[in-house]
Amino acid sequence: MDLEERAREILPQGVYDYVAGGAGDELTLQENVAAWQRIRLLPRVLRDVSAVDLGTTALGTDLGSPIGVAPTAFHRMLHPDGEVASAAGVAAAGALHVVSTRSTTPVEQVAEALGDNPWWYQVYVLRDRGLTEELVRRAVTAGAKALVLTADTPRLGLRLRDVRNDFTLPPNLGSPESLDRPGNLADQDPAVTFDDIGWLASTFGLPVVVKGVLRGDDAKSSIAAGAAAIWVSNHGGRQLDGAVATADALPAVVDSVGDSAEVYVDGGVRRGIDVLRGIALGAGLVFVGRPVSWALAVGGSELVATTLQTLRDELELALALAGCPKVGDVTSDLVAR
Amino acid sequence: MDLEERAREILPQGVYDYVAGGAGDELTLQENVAAWQRIRLLPRVLRDVSAVDLGTTALGTDLGSPIGVAPTAFHRMLHPDGEVASAAGVAAAGALHVVSTRSTTPVEQVAEALGDNPWWYQVYVLRDRGLTEELVRRAVTAGAKALVLTADTPRLGLRLRDVRNDFTLPPNLGSPESLDRPGNLADQDPAVTFDDIGWLASTFGLPVVVKGVLRGDDAKSSIAAGAAAIWVSNHGGRQLDGAVATADALPAVVDSVGDSAEVYVDGGVRRGIDVLRGIALGAGLVFVGRPVSWALAVGGSELVATTLQTLRDELELALALAGCPKVGDVTSDLVAR
Amino acid sequence: MDLEERAREILPQGVYDYVAGGAGDELTLQENVAAWQRIRLLPRVLRDVSAVDLGTTALGTDLGSPIGVAPTAFHRMLHPDGEVASAAGVAAAGALHVVSTRSTTPVEQVAEALGDNPWWYQVYVLRDRGLTEELVRRAVTAGAKALVLTADTPRLGLRLRDVRNDFTLPPNLGSPESLDRPGNLADQDPAVTFDDIGWLASTFGLPVVVKGVLRGDDAKSSIAAGAAAIWVSNHGGRQLDGAVATADALPAVVDSVGDSAEVYVDGGVRRGIDVLRGIALGAGLVFVGRPVSWALAVGGSELVATTLQTLRDELELALALAGCPKVGDVTSDLVAR
Amino acid sequence: MDLEERAREILPQGVYDYVAGGAGDELTLQENVAAWQRIRLLPRVLRDVSAVDLGTTALGTDLGSPIGVAPTAFHRMLHPDGEVASAAGVAAAGALHVVSTRSTTPVEQVAEALGDNPWWYQVYVLRDRGLTEELVRRAVTAGAKALVLTADTPRLGLRLRDVRNDFTLPPNLGSPESLDRPGNLADQDPAVTFDDIGWLASTFGLPVVVKGVLRGDDAKSSIAAGAAAIWVSNHGGRQLDGAVATADALPAVVDSVGDSAEVYVDGGVRRGIDVLRGIALGAGLVFVGRPVSWALAVGGSELVATTLQTLRDELELALALAGCPKVGDVTSDLVAR
Repeated sequence: MDLEERAREILPQGVYDYVAGGAGDELTLQENVAAWQRIRLLPRVLRDVSAVDLGTTALGTDLGSPIGVAPTAFHRMLHPDGEVASAAGVAAAGALHVVSTRSTTPVEQVAEALGDNPWWYQVYVLRDRGLTEELVRRAVTAGAKALVLTADTPRLGLRLRDVRNDFTLPPNLGSPESLDRPGNLADQDPAVTFDDIGWLASTFGLPVVVKGVLRGDDAKSSIAAGAAAIWVSNHGGRQLDGAVATADALPAVVDSVGDSAEVYVDGGVRRGIDVLRGIALGAGLVFVGRPVSWALAVGGSELVATTLQTLRDELELALALAGCPKVGDVTSDLVAR
Repeated sequence: MDLEERAREILPQGVYDYVAGGAGDELTLQENVAAWQRIRLLPRVLRDVSAVDLGTTALGTDLGSPIGVAPTAFHRMLHPDGEVASAAGVAAAGALHVVSTRSTTPVEQVAEALGDNPWWYQVYVLRDRGLTEELVRRAVTAGAKALVLTADTPRLGLRLRDVRNDFTLPPNLGSPESLDRPGNLADQDPAVTFDDIGWLASTFGLPVVVKGVLRGDDAKSSIAAGAAAIWVSNHGGRQLDGAVATADALPAVVDSVGDSAEVYVDGGVRRGIDVLRGIALGAGLVFVGRPVSWALAVGGSELVATTLQTLRDELELALALAGCPKVGDVTSDLVAR
Repeated sequence: MDLEERAREILPQGVYDYVAGGAGDELTLQENVAAWQRIRLLPRVLRDVSAVDLGTTALGTDLGSPIGVAPTAFHRMLHPDGEVASAAGVAAAGALHVVSTRSTTPVEQVAEALGDNPWWYQVYVLRDRGLTEELVRRAVTAGAKALVLTADTPRLGLRLRDVRNDFTLPPNLGSPESLDRPGNLADQDPAVTFDDIGWLASTFGLPVVVKGVLRGDDAKSSIAAGAAAIWVSNHGGRQLDGAVATADALPAVVDSVGDSAEVYVDGGVRRGIDVLRGIALGAGLVFVGRPVSWALAVGGSELVATTLQTLRDELELALALAGCPKVGDVTSDLVAR
Repeated sequence: MDLEERAREILPQGVYDYVAGGAGDELTLQENVAAWQRIRLLPRVLRDVSAVDLGTTALGTDLGSPIGVAPTAFHRMLHPDGEVASAAGVAAAGALHVVSTRSTTPVEQVAEALGDNPWWYQVYVLRDRGLTEELVRRAVTAGAKALVLTADTPRLGLRLRDVRNDFTLPPNLGSPESLDRPGNLADQDPAVTFDDIGWLASTFGLPVVVKGVLRGDDAKSSIAAGAAAIWVSNHGGRQLDGAVATADALPAVVDSVGDSAEVYVDGGVRRGIDVLRGIALGAGLVFVGRPVSWALAVGGSELVATTLQTLRDELELALALAGCPKVGDVTSDLVAR
């Protein structure tokens, strides 16, 4: 919270609002945070928590913790070193990173900054399928371990702050990805369907995560179409205002999916106890977005690392205080009905 | 919201309060808005929404969208061109219009401003049945396609703002409708019953919509008496304070009515997602009132058109983001329980 | 509300707080008002409400409306004419009046001011049973038609405002009732039990109303012991803070009592729609307290009458707008679940 | 509340915040208070409450009331006479006292100040089991009648106020207990399990109370391991933020325990009606913490006694107003569902 305040002070109003804002009246934006806070925990006591192990796996990759960094756009808007700085910070903290299609830095440079740290690539399917394929191919070549198909953005949400601010991207950001060939990165295809999951999976041979799912039936359809994981998300409250908070949507999706795929969640995650709550509700990974953006804006790579490390420390403490020495000990009975 | 603020600045306090206010402590006025906002949506993803069709039909008429304009009184109080300006604006936006009995402009002139745009006529049954019949006859002759019987106003609600403001209609407004013959337009008959539905239907040969219904049993009685549609409304919170919000009343009425009639709703509708919510709860049409009044006051015909077009754009975007290419795709499972 | 503000301006702080305040943290005081406001109504439409009849009966007496005035203490603290002024005002409005044991005017003078208007006498059973009997006897002789046994005051509630204000009764108020013989009117007997209901009923031959009941089992015990009516009350939030709001307690008491006795309610009633709500939940009479006190303080007898008449007008309008031409038409299905 | 305000004025900011604050965003801190306030009571009337008896027993000891004082740390930080002052105040009020391991006064001096008043000793099991045993042995020798094992503190909660204040204990407080031998009182063992209950019970021959339980299964495991009583607590909101409020956790624990052990509660208790609520929900004892700390800071021993006596008076009045002449009359039907 302090971090957001500091970011607000140093960023241009339009940039701050672009990141902070949500769609419409920002009902979902607020609900995302409030829904986590409403969840009451029933910690266990008198368990041996002298060693707490945050390790987990996702899509077959061993991870140091269940905390991931959600894809966000245009990092050079927030910091001159852009995605290189954020990636380096995430890698320093050892968190799973998801690189955005809307990176303002070529994916190869981001991958270099990430080093050995595992990372995934977020995909917008564009009207220009050739350009889409080229972008994804470069990410795969650069080392992405999974593809995250954003499913909730057939059109851009109604961001009233941006309308009021008459917001446009700062000059000289562009999108280096698109330099190789003509095409419009912002021109997403509104005709993307479940079939594109199979296309992505078979074309690139990587597991596909479908991000933006809020319903059990959509989760099932995604899995039937080849998805390896479902990411419960409402795009940080930036797409359909009034959409259910992700913490409220998560349990039904988990129920629908059962053991057929992994389930992740993002949206309104601010503290380690929110990560604990997400895991207790059945998420395998819990992603944060805005806190990383504020850290990037205020303190670059180093503060990104510190922020993620703090979140990790909070989670470790939360597990100890909940009587859970391992991530797998966090079960649904930790949540009060 | 901005629009209401601007209207507040330019309108006399009494006129602003007359439009903005509700009955009693304005509990229902506030609840109408809050009840929509409490409804959480479960958007669908990965549907082809490259083309979104807002078209629908009501009472056999094809309409460009499910958005209608609720009848409101005394438009010349808000703008010198009164109902001619509002009608022209509504027609420019292609929305269904409902002309009020309490028009301050002769219905023939309003009809002319509407051109080919479909419109309905709202009916207060007065103690003077002859005058009532004359007014309705003129509307029918002028081209009204349905009659909307206001059922919730046997007496005027207790508008405390008007009492405090000692509000009376500005001079020179009068009601041009009544110039032809003596009679008192404000003298509504408190003895109107379900029987008057049949009288209206058989006398004028037009479908009758009963407006102001909040209960399933009243909806059924209205249909048994000849109503073609039920309009769930609490008169914008201006009649019985404490009455249930329309969004909360709608589902039970829809359940009671089943396929025997169409159901519409108004009250607290401010955004395209509210229209989506209304349709998801079973309404065939969703009407707005105050937003059109503020637009009329601030910018006349043109701003009325813009406001309705914005609402339509919001609805189209909401359908796309909810994965619904057609209005008929908006089903009750879009609402989270 | 305006009335309370005006009373606050003209009354000494201690007197204002004595009337306005509740016990402890005033949770129940606030809940009483909030609980009515939470109740959503489902008005009926298209009923003939050209004539609305507020008439009802209670304990065999015909009353002009179901609105009564709850007993409150020390009216000379609020107005120099004290209980004579309040009684005259209540009588002018034709409401049922309940005269308090803690009157600062002899009951015979209050009775005279009431004229033919029906009234009841509120009874605190004192340690000094002889004094109790003498006081009740005088009230019976003066024309009380029923006795209201206050059951919730074995000890005085913890009124923190009075503690903070170091509040004591203004000098020269005393209690004229007690002039005849020694004894302490404030010394209520904490050993009053259900048996005292029978004692009151058999000693004075009048129906006994038990006031202060919040539980179904206590209502049944009261009736078994001879009570003719149950008055659901928490003493205006002035006794046990945290006690359930009367609107929330009423339905269970009504269920328990069935047809075996009448049920009334007070607490937080501020508007005609609150009276409607009370009747819809099963109360035969609905009593107001503080609004009458504020009216007495601000404008004496005349404003008491106006205030009660306004409440009556609001109730009449509420019945019309709810489609209920008679009080008996107000049934529980008017309340939304 | 007034007391806390006064304490805030006289204490250094860091000390005030150390006592007042909770973990994380202080959700649980606030919920503890709010959860009691949400509980609505259904008082009984017309019971003989001329004598109200607050007496009860716990672990075989007769107590003057069901009110106890929860263990809190470092009293010399609040008042120069530290634990001697607080103990003397508690003894003067005749309340059950629980002396903290983190006392800044040797337990023998605290015991002397307590005189004949019953008291228990709170135990943190340290990594240094020898030091733990020595501390407990001294308390047992000094007269402790039971041992209270704190189960919710394998690690210290995240107290953000302390982090922001860079809070450290004032110099010269130290912990006199530890003077006898080396060892670190703050170095609690994170590997404490249910087995340590049996160790404590068998080593010292005193009944063991397990404090910090919020779940029925943990309560059962504690009893199976030898606990004589379960103390429902979330450490005053200072450990796992987001943990359920104690008033909300209590009923399920009571259900799980049945007659197999006693159940107590603390957390957010501010008024006598909160004690009544706790007993109605099944607690045998209800403990207060911060109010005693504020009293100690503001007025030393005397104000501690007054504060506890006021709470006792409030409870006695609450029982009278609820129609409960004895503590055993406070049953679960006093709580509204």
